Amino acid sequence: MIELDFKKTGGLLPAIAQDAATGEVLMMAYINQASWEKTLETGEVHYWSRSRQEIWHKGGTSGHVQKVKAIYVDCDRDTVLFKVEQVGGAACHTGMRTCFHQRVEKGRLVMEGEPVFDPQEVYGK
Amino acid sequence: MIELDFKKTGGLLPAIAQDAATGEVLMMAYINQASWEKTLETGEVHYWSRSRQEIWHKGGTSGHVQKVKAIYVDCDRDTVLFKVEQVGGAACHTGMRTCFHQRVEKGRLVMEGEPVFDPQEVYGK
Repeated sequence: MIELDFKKTGGLLPAIAQDAATGEVLMMAYINQASWEKTLETGEVHYWSRSRQEIWHKGGTSGHVQKVKAIYVDCDRDTVLFKVEQVGGAACHTGMRTCFHQRVEKGRLVMEGEPVFDPQEVYGK
Repeated sequence: MIELDFKKTGGLLPAIAQDAATGEVLMMAYINQASWEKTLETGEVHYWSRSRQEIWHKGGTSGHVQKVKAIYVDCDRDTVLFKVEQVGGAACHTGMRTCFHQRVEKGRLVMEGEPVFDPQEVYGK
């Protein structure tokens, strides 16, 4: 088991998900020791939900899981990069491919791209 | 000025730097309001150094600055993605192109890539 430096930041480390095929940065969320272990064990990304205070199997409800293709650990062992296959084509709860779909343009935020799915259909009401 | 949600996390938000040309994720660090403004104003990435508790002009000492090519804000406005030109070719203080140069391979960390510069030469002793 790879030891990450969970102590420095109170047990939670940032984890970045990047599309393994396109290089697109899809999202950033947090992991704790338990979600790290679960990710290594299952090959699907598990984060820690700060709002729900529980392990968050990304896509567990919608089926839009993130299949781990490669894992990188940064020089300080306190940030993780998951290269993933994003099942369903979209990582964002809004239905957009990436959570980073708002670009800063002359002091304003401009939406980029089109939704891949309708969140109402995938998550229900 | 784009308003980010600095309140949720005590004033610091994660910021990811990605090579604008290659798509490589280079590093993750934190920004506060002041470093965010400084980045927008100068076109070079400024983080907040948690260890030194000051604005950190990335590459200010070494000349290896990160020139902002595009900025994306995530759906919750609490994480930022900088697409940058990494002057000097390496973002990591170890001299490696990216801080994410250790790959998880069968329960071990394997180094990937070669250093672009010698940290001793760039940062001195």
